[in-house]
Amino acid sequence: MDGPMKPRPLRAGVIGATGMVGQNYLRLLRGHPWFDVTHVSASPRSAGSIYAEAVAGRWVMEEGIPDQVADLIVADAQDVDQARARCDFVFSAVGMDKQAVRELENRYASAGLPVISNNSAHRHTPDVPMLIPEINPHHADIIPFQRQSRGWDRGFIAVKPNCSLQSYLPPVYALMAAGYPVAAIVVTTLQAVSGAGYPGVPSLDILANIVPYIGGEEEKLESETLKMLGVLGEGGIAEASIAVSAQCNRVPVRDGHLECLSMALGRSGQEHNPGVDEIVATLEAFRGPPEVTELPSSPVQPILVRREPDRPQPFLDREAGNGTAVSVGRIRPCPVLDWKFVLLGHNTLRGAAGGSIHNAELLVKQGWIA
Amino acid sequence: MDGPMKPRPLRAGVIGATGMVGQNYLRLLRGHPWFDVTHVSASPRSAGSIYAEAVAGRWVMEEGIPDQVADLIVADAQDVDQARARCDFVFSAVGMDKQAVRELENRYASAGLPVISNNSAHRHTPDVPMLIPEINPHHADIIPFQRQSRGWDRGFIAVKPNCSLQSYLPPVYALMAAGYPVAAIVVTTLQAVSGAGYPGVPSLDILANIVPYIGGEEEKLESETLKMLGVLGEGGIAEASIAVSAQCNRVPVRDGHLECLSMALGRSGQEHNPGVDEIVATLEAFRGPPEVTELPSSPVQPILVRREPDRPQPFLDREAGNGTAVSVGRIRPCPVLDWKFVLLGHNTLRGAAGGSIHNAELLVKQGWIA
Amino acid sequence: MDGPMKPRPLRAGVIGATGMVGQNYLRLLRGHPWFDVTHVSASPRSAGSIYAEAVAGRWVMEEGIPDQVADLIVADAQDVDQARARCDFVFSAVGMDKQAVRELENRYASAGLPVISNNSAHRHTPDVPMLIPEINPHHADIIPFQRQSRGWDRGFIAVKPNCSLQSYLPPVYALMAAGYPVAAIVVTTLQAVSGAGYPGVPSLDILANIVPYIGGEEEKLESETLKMLGVLGEGGIAEASIAVSAQCNRVPVRDGHLECLSMALGRSGQEHNPGVDEIVATLEAFRGPPEVTELPSSPVQPILVRREPDRPQPFLDREAGNGTAVSVGRIRPCPVLDWKFVLLGHNTLRGAAGGSIHNAELLVKQGWIA
Amino acid sequence: MDGPMKPRPLRAGVIGATGMVGQNYLRLLRGHPWFDVTHVSASPRSAGSIYAEAVAGRWVMEEGIPDQVADLIVADAQDVDQARARCDFVFSAVGMDKQAVRELENRYASAGLPVISNNSAHRHTPDVPMLIPEINPHHADIIPFQRQSRGWDRGFIAVKPNCSLQSYLPPVYALMAAGYPVAAIVVTTLQAVSGAGYPGVPSLDILANIVPYIGGEEEKLESETLKMLGVLGEGGIAEASIAVSAQCNRVPVRDGHLECLSMALGRSGQEHNPGVDEIVATLEAFRGPPEVTELPSSPVQPILVRREPDRPQPFLDREAGNGTAVSVGRIRPCPVLDWKFVLLGHNTLRGAAGGSIHNAELLVKQGWIA
Repeated sequence: MDGPMKPRPLRAGVIGATGMVGQNYLRLLRGHPWFDVTHVSASPRSAGSIYAEAVAGRWVMEEGIPDQVADLIVADAQDVDQARARCDFVFSAVGMDKQAVRELENRYASAGLPVISNNSAHRHTPDVPMLIPEINPHHADIIPFQRQSRGWDRGFIAVKPNCSLQSYLPPVYALMAAGYPVAAIVVTTLQAVSGAGYPGVPSLDILANIVPYIGGEEEKLESETLKMLGVLGEGGIAEASIAVSAQCNRVPVRDGHLECLSMALGRSGQEHNPGVDEIVATLEAFRGPPEVTELPSSPVQPILVRREPDRPQPFLDREAGNGTAVSVGRIRPCPVLDWKFVLLGHNTLRGAAGGSIHNAELLVKQGWIA
Repeated sequence: MDGPMKPRPLRAGVIGATGMVGQNYLRLLRGHPWFDVTHVSASPRSAGSIYAEAVAGRWVMEEGIPDQVADLIVADAQDVDQARARCDFVFSAVGMDKQAVRELENRYASAGLPVISNNSAHRHTPDVPMLIPEINPHHADIIPFQRQSRGWDRGFIAVKPNCSLQSYLPPVYALMAAGYPVAAIVVTTLQAVSGAGYPGVPSLDILANIVPYIGGEEEKLESETLKMLGVLGEGGIAEASIAVSAQCNRVPVRDGHLECLSMALGRSGQEHNPGVDEIVATLEAFRGPPEVTELPSSPVQPILVRREPDRPQPFLDREAGNGTAVSVGRIRPCPVLDWKFVLLGHNTLRGAAGGSIHNAELLVKQGWIA
Repeated sequence: MDGPMKPRPLRAGVIGATGMVGQNYLRLLRGHPWFDVTHVSASPRSAGSIYAEAVAGRWVMEEGIPDQVADLIVADAQDVDQARARCDFVFSAVGMDKQAVRELENRYASAGLPVISNNSAHRHTPDVPMLIPEINPHHADIIPFQRQSRGWDRGFIAVKPNCSLQSYLPPVYALMAAGYPVAAIVVTTLQAVSGAGYPGVPSLDILANIVPYIGGEEEKLESETLKMLGVLGEGGIAEASIAVSAQCNRVPVRDGHLECLSMALGRSGQEHNPGVDEIVATLEAFRGPPEVTELPSSPVQPILVRREPDRPQPFLDREAGNGTAVSVGRIRPCPVLDWKFVLLGHNTLRGAAGGSIHNAELLVKQGWIA
Repeated sequence: MDGPMKPRPLRAGVIGATGMVGQNYLRLLRGHPWFDVTHVSASPRSAGSIYAEAVAGRWVMEEGIPDQVADLIVADAQDVDQARARCDFVFSAVGMDKQAVRELENRYASAGLPVISNNSAHRHTPDVPMLIPEINPHHADIIPFQRQSRGWDRGFIAVKPNCSLQSYLPPVYALMAAGYPVAAIVVTTLQAVSGAGYPGVPSLDILANIVPYIGGEEEKLESETLKMLGVLGEGGIAEASIAVSAQCNRVPVRDGHLECLSMALGRSGQEHNPGVDEIVATLEAFRGPPEVTELPSSPVQPILVRREPDRPQPFLDREAGNGTAVSVGRIRPCPVLDWKFVLLGHNTLRGAAGGSIHNAELLVKQGWIA
């Protein structure tokens, strides 16, 4: 992505800018080569305040508030006209009930603004693409149908999947792309508290404890995988036929989701069953398509394989590839399914805001945001 | 177990009494209705000291050193004669390499002392029973063969399985016993740091972190299950045909192993596949055989089923049934295998020392220790 | 306290019964020899529900809901008449702004009900006694003045101090009572998260972190000490002349406040300055007055002295004396003031609800509640 | 520090390179503008191995082993001749008993190598300077006397103080330098586990717990302060007359020592007692002497003042100034002494290895290492 193509940075808005995901957007967009944050909005309670004042006592990032946004006046998230006047597209980090999110995001798109959303509300809307750049960038080709069916011109909505998927899909997809059809996945997640936002998980619940439940999370993993790996056809995205079983735990770790995964390979491909060396080589060689590898947030190597017996670990490996790579380790045969391994991804740098910024870069590169 | 049968308490020795498992034995045996600790031994370094001095600065139990043992002189663990003079049987909590453990435990048994061991060294010795009282008490019937083949009279060796098994086997076995053959298990464990002894896991490794590896643990889960559920026949214990796949993690929790388990039921029994209500009813109704339910350490109800969506949790549930019950929750269909659930057991009260004390009670009740 | 004096248990109400302090009351009052919980109340939102339903998903105690209260219908905390019909006195665990608390507690007292409160609202009301039974039980003698000046007959209000004081005041007072006048205290507290209630401290704030600030806490320590050690005279309680400087930290510990304290002894008593042996002997010999030692919640020995170099510790010592004793250790000279030591008290068993139950027992024994 | 003065990097050795402090040296020296690591040594057990193999399974830094040192052959730390052949000076990170450390460091210095040490063994050796560049760089002027009295030519020994001092001395010294004589300090520390090295603190001791004791630490704070602030005269360094009282706690935090400090100002300067604004201004304006501000590791602003009520916190502030600045907050009057505040410093970046690298830079700049 170089000079000729991007003569000026695009103007980005962050809708829901005072919450933890919103703060992460602002932190990660500081100094972004393609995007300038020119607009922040939140609930009516914060509207009208200077951003730095609106988040006083609620800013939970390690770094301070970026200078670029500290003095912006917070707009009302319902005021779509103001956003349209100030932005080329918006990131949606709103946290309301799903119906309200759907309606609000539709209003932004209807007003001509591309909406890149973290919220789960539109993930199963048939004409809305759910994207991970390395895996299904071509699902963005549904955007013209979305625009046409809704009568939108420039606007559209694109979403990202749940952050646990953002970690386990790359190795699963890499194997599938290399000719090893994955037929079933049993995955247990150990998820960091930052995934629950702020204030999020009360310390009395999680200090030296595990909570073996995250509301709605297992259903997301089990259903979103099917759309992510599905085939885009005339009638929309046909779900993949892969069985997924998830058990999700909240653990006393700040950042980084660790996942223990077992998988069955499709029996039709029996004769081509890989050995551990082939799996390692496949994962390490995996790259997204050329349009993806050049994006500012793309890791050089999306999947890193650790050889040590006790890796990956959240503390040691979550920052790998600037937090955007997935670390895989302990690849070994599974006595019940075929293979099992441990993987780790950073839930806010690769997941959450980081994942949506990556999606926005992809959609610019593809020409959908301009 | 009442007066007529046990006119006097049995004299118990603890071999390896200064380590964390040894300390747990002493703590749990305080006030035991059947057993008096009359002998403690350790490495030559501690031999000759008063017990309280030998563990000064190394006693890590919440309660203080029991008065009964504080003033015992620590013997050399290699001095079998002294143990024979002072005990009716011994608990083995030694921590040496496996060959050395096997030889030492053999020497105690050869000298006429029943050896109830926590160590994994003899778990796969064909004529040594590996016991959980509620599950396979009849495996103790191999003791006469053990004695005969080795030329021992009163002595013998009995072991317990890995503490993670002590938690997940009761529900698995309860279902099998009720006519639902379990054919395969995929289990991910989240294990507390007390399972690694003291000093054990360095805080720098585990503070706000996960270590997705415990050396040798997964192999133990996968192999010991087969012996535990095996059939005792003429030639020893024939391994059960059940596939087990384990992924073991160390988590920043002090006590209590939480396990996420999926299981496949045998296809032959398809027509009798249970619903969730039958599973719950089966688990709650499960009791050991009568000889087991009367033991001092037996929980009234071995398996407790939690209905809340977010239980069991280590902090809230590990003490259930005085720490000897297993808590099961979140029973639901598994999209890949048949059923999945979360379970929790206390790794030192139900597992480790607690499990061996329970075994010793069983072996007294059965008449093997007298 | 025996039969003749207490022919029947007193009927206790808990105002604000659904919050964490309220839950602690119900847990600690289970099986109390003098008190039966006959009434629970909360905000209008919960009023009318069965208690077990009102706290579903919010009950955070390790033990389950006591049977005795699970089926009580929750009343509206504003409905004083209902409380009067059902109780002999009430515990106040309400959590509103201070002015509202004062007014509500006044209404209960005005209606004839003794109010034993955890809230800080009335701690500095001149005619309201703030009590720790071992230290200033005679401050309850202000109750007749309180009743008279407000025109109340049976009702009155009594409070407890901040839970950090409940830990450090006993050793300080024990020394003063033994003739070693304490003139100044510099104390740094390391306070457990349970002190902040539920949901309380967000895990993102405290996981592997310290928050060196607890709003209003330092001011409470510095001012409440003066009233607690003050002299009850005609005009009320004259504040003690002692300088207190506090720094309060929230630490990632579940229960148990640890405090590092330095103190200066009054210079007038220079010739009688104690040595470490005298301090230890003084602390260990300390007992409350006879009317206190017989109370059900009174520890046999209020102050325990640890000789180990690294004690007390929250995990190991908070349950000492059933959680109602204070553990003191590391007594040594202070190069700046005179002496320094470390102390630990359980913030919910000795502090919070436990402290108020102790106060209610005292006030029954003294005849103020009947 | 610019080109003309440093035509080539100096060759640095790390003695004790396999332990945690040694690893920190190697991590922090990666890409250092003045120093190249050309030599690593350790115990005879590791000698002869390639460094990467010697630390396999023991490397505990977040980043991997620097390429520059991964392939170095580990020398025997006792082999001084080899070090002399390969280095211009050495960092000492050895961990033996103090007498052995003193003798070994003396041997290196005697062989002509400047020894910059983290070990406490030589901190109270009268002719060995104990340095923090911003505070007492002129204490290095004792080096000629050290060389002369011992008959050394190029070699010498310089040490750093305890890492807790490295955090609290800058604000204390800044006030003294501004004319506010600090006469007494009462400090309570909350120290991170990384300060104890690896494996260091067992997780069972510190998970959701506090250990109110660190062997020898309080004595170090109380005595080293006096030498650090002392005056270098003919006969050595005359200790400052300042009273220090320390209580040191280990807390479940990975990195960053938080300290709660109260201080008395000298009464002679009563009329010049500062207000909070003057203290803030003094701390923020503090800079080391010019020879120090130019060093590669010097923070631009050594002392940062936080205005928020709840800062500094280890997680949020330890990386301030690349981990080399001290953060101070909550400056307020102390009811017992004069002022109190909270401060935080990174114990391995500002303290430990980071502090010694800073000292080595100073000694190069001053010409003592060449």
